[in-house]
Amino acid sequence: MTTEHEQHPADPDRATAQHPADPDRATAQHSSGFSRRGLLGAGLAAAGAGVGAAVGIAGAAAATGVNPLAAATNGDESLDLSQQHPFYATAAGQPQGGIRTVPQRHCVFMTFDLSTSVATDLQVLLARWSAAIAQLQAGKTVGSVEPAHGNGVGADTGEALDLGPASLTVTVGLGPGVFDERFGLADKRPAHLAAIPTLPSDNLDEQLTGGDLSLQACADDPQVAYHAVRDLARMARGTATVRWTVLGFGRASAGPSQSTPRNLMGFKDGTRNVTTDDEFDRFVWVDQPGDGAAWMRGGTYQVVRKIRMNLETWDADVVSDQQRVFGRTKIDGAPLSGGSEHTTPDFHAAHGDGTTKIDARSHIALAAHEANGGVKILRRGYNYTDGLNQYGQLDAGLLFAAYMNDPEHFERLQRKLGASDRLNEYVSHIGSAVFAVPPAPRKGSYIAEQLFR
Amino acid sequence: MTTEHEQHPADPDRATAQHPADPDRATAQHSSGFSRRGLLGAGLAAAGAGVGAAVGIAGAAAATGVNPLAAATNGDESLDLSQQHPFYATAAGQPQGGIRTVPQRHCVFMTFDLSTSVATDLQVLLARWSAAIAQLQAGKTVGSVEPAHGNGVGADTGEALDLGPASLTVTVGLGPGVFDERFGLADKRPAHLAAIPTLPSDNLDEQLTGGDLSLQACADDPQVAYHAVRDLARMARGTATVRWTVLGFGRASAGPSQSTPRNLMGFKDGTRNVTTDDEFDRFVWVDQPGDGAAWMRGGTYQVVRKIRMNLETWDADVVSDQQRVFGRTKIDGAPLSGGSEHTTPDFHAAHGDGTTKIDARSHIALAAHEANGGVKILRRGYNYTDGLNQYGQLDAGLLFAAYMNDPEHFERLQRKLGASDRLNEYVSHIGSAVFAVPPAPRKGSYIAEQLFR
Ligand code: HEM
Ligand code: HEM
Repeated sequence: MTTEHEQHPADPDRATAQHPADPDRATAQHSSGFSRRGLLGAGLAAAGAGVGAAVGIAGAAAATGVNPLAAATNGDESLDLSQQHPFYATAAGQPQGGIRTVPQRHCVFMTFDLSTSVATDLQVLLARWSAAIAQLQAGKTVGSVEPAHGNGVGADTGEALDLGPASLTVTVGLGPGVFDERFGLADKRPAHLAAIPTLPSDNLDEQLTGGDLSLQACADDPQVAYHAVRDLARMARGTATVRWTVLGFGRASAGPSQSTPRNLMGFKDGTRNVTTDDEFDRFVWVDQPGDGAAWMRGGTYQVVRKIRMNLETWDADVVSDQQRVFGRTKIDGAPLSGGSEHTTPDFHAAHGDGTTKIDARSHIALAAHEANGGVKILRRGYNYTDGLNQYGQLDAGLLFAAYMNDPEHFERLQRKLGASDRLNEYVSHIGSAVFAVPPAPRKGSYIAEQLFR
Repeated sequence: MTTEHEQHPADPDRATAQHPADPDRATAQHSSGFSRRGLLGAGLAAAGAGVGAAVGIAGAAAATGVNPLAAATNGDESLDLSQQHPFYATAAGQPQGGIRTVPQRHCVFMTFDLSTSVATDLQVLLARWSAAIAQLQAGKTVGSVEPAHGNGVGADTGEALDLGPASLTVTVGLGPGVFDERFGLADKRPAHLAAIPTLPSDNLDEQLTGGDLSLQACADDPQVAYHAVRDLARMARGTATVRWTVLGFGRASAGPSQSTPRNLMGFKDGTRNVTTDDEFDRFVWVDQPGDGAAWMRGGTYQVVRKIRMNLETWDADVVSDQQRVFGRTKIDGAPLSGGSEHTTPDFHAAHGDGTTKIDARSHIALAAHEANGGVKILRRGYNYTDGLNQYGQLDAGLLFAAYMNDPEHFERLQRKLGASDRLNEYVSHIGSAVFAVPPAPRKGSYIAEQLFR
């Protein structure tokens, strides 16, 4: 097994290739910078810090139950593009990045169809991707940009040279197709991996649905995320073809040290989310992967939906109705039962006339764990825009991405939301896919290696 | 004339609306922060600093002829989203923002067709836009997000609450249609404003071409830029309809304090650009606006092209050929005649066999002022991506935006490039438009007010 990088052992990495005498650059890759996020997240960002330690720190912050930077606005946050997340696990069963990672500012999501039916082709692709992602997350290229005297095609397309790691994480997922008749891997299928059935209100476009593989590249610089997906897609040529892609901007879920961002409907999104170690263990990480699927222990499932918003209709709605739709106030994001953003909603609180303060068909009343047998999912979405639709109106929405230890939890919620949610008048689910996300590999290994044993 | 904001005199501005007791937030709007860019650009960013002073400082930095932060990578640069650019001019003839402004990280460009034929409708729109842009550039909303008790439609859609000014600039342009028979403004037409004729290699899509008005919103946060254009488009309803829009990411031209960014072909873009006061006076700002067009003195012309890149073909080309196409090296951006990035290209330097080191049909040999009667244009482009094309390949390219005191200068260059540029094999011009960009208004006035006198 070779990687692009190993094929070019003499390649300078991005840092030395660019500014051999620039000390700033070298240290930038290994310092956590001066930003507020840098200081608070130092343990998370320090180069080489184990994933385990990182999880511990994030967990500690989350375990307080409150958002430590709730008073800080997103606007205050300064960006440190030298921050990096380690790719390799330091112990078995640690998760890939991009799941519990504090949401970065940008995300490119792409799915692929396998065009091979040979398991070793998939295996080689996963191995090459793993080595390349490790390079990319360290702020390096996937190989030579300018081969000696330019004689040869560049292994790396070069547009992220000079940009730093920018907190990049690339998360790899395996779709249900990996376990069909083609590859002889059917008996290794994770217990809960199956195509999502058609759900109420679904309006799916076949061309935005499904996929055998997924890449979710998130970074604080959009060009870093785009470059990662572009160069990984190049490596897939001959083995897999691109199926669909969405470019996300402006995260729509907050991490533990962030104030809650807003979706394009203007509401805070991510207020009640999975945050504590205990919640991650109960709702996100796979503990019982099923017979033959031990390779998935410590992994998770990824459900992605491309959800279009009818912004023109939404913008013409009175704000009191918008608030009724979500069950929260627009500026503060407080539940309509009272209090402030992080007050627990009281779904029983009623007005004098007996109607509940939080409408029974509001988004939060239907989606809350209190109404769904205690089930929670980790939401980690991004806003997207596709320019204009055929009516000359803004074509935009939410790249909904969620992680959970059983996709049935998503189905349960969406079956209900699709049937009754007041929000349905303003949104349309046009894309959908589900993937098994294996844990991170240890150094010397690659994503899902155990699957092929 | 009222504005959305004036219609809601009791609206809290964004800062107080959100965190009435948060001192960080208040100062954030008025400090230049701790970032390196903040320190170097303090004069530029300080709230309330006149445009004149800003130009002076930018000019001073630029006048040294070298990039003061050439050693710093884009990756080092940390972002300060509290920086703001003043909208109003402090003296007549000062330019709008977004032209000489150090390029922000994101840009949303939109054009409009006027659906009215009444000049005062246009006048009112420009006045409302001006007042709203002043609010937006100060990090405020364009009006109430949550009207009293939610009874009413929000004047502002709310998704940029909490995000800060993020160095937003919104640049307004007037297309040739403003001076046609409809509005009785024909005798005020700026001397050089006319639709761009079809040029060699043009492959224009009617739906991405032309427009009576343009908005270029650039900011260091994409949601701030998107929100600005969205809410300004809302205000235009009944007066103008959206024609086309492009979401740019990853600037493709550098400002004086920035290292040169890269376009999606992986090459540094913006190395030789208009930078000094003298160059701006000679090539960008309009000094002789023509009979009846005194309102344009101190303004400029904006030429925008949506240029698609055939990235798959490009990525398969050997790097030595890519370098021949541009006439520069890929990693360093040095001219092929030798030296480093900022060495002046020697278009006569030849190999032993008599062929020039910089190919005569290379992009820079054809576009350089040395080959075009000394003419220069200010390039201020952004990368864009539209997802996948019908072949499942990356659909991406360059949102080329240039400023000059005569659009004939662009035509001259593009006539030549379109006919002979080696780059033509890899790009396709699919959108095009030209606009007159009036100077910034003084407080109490609005963009192009003089046009209506
Ligand atoms: C465009 C589509 C959607 C929008 C704009 C949206 C927006 C929101 C907003 C504003 C909130 C309240 C703040 C918060 O706690 O995060 C919320 C909560 C929530 N949403 Fe969504 N959402 C969308 C789709 C979905 C989907 C498809 C699901 C799952 C099937 C979902 C599951 C949830 C859950 C579980 C909560 C937390 C409810 C609670 O515990 O109070 N959302 N969403
Ligand atoms: C996708 C299309 C284009 C790409 C990828 C591109 C890229 C580049 C690159 C890499 C350079 C060299 C670095 C620099 O000095 O900035 C350059 C220079 C330049 N380009 Fe372009 N460009 C494109 C289109 C255009 C167009 C349409 C024009 C004008 C009609 C133009 C005018 C120039 C000029 C004037 C220079 C500076 C030449 C010199 O003085 O050396 N470019 N461009």
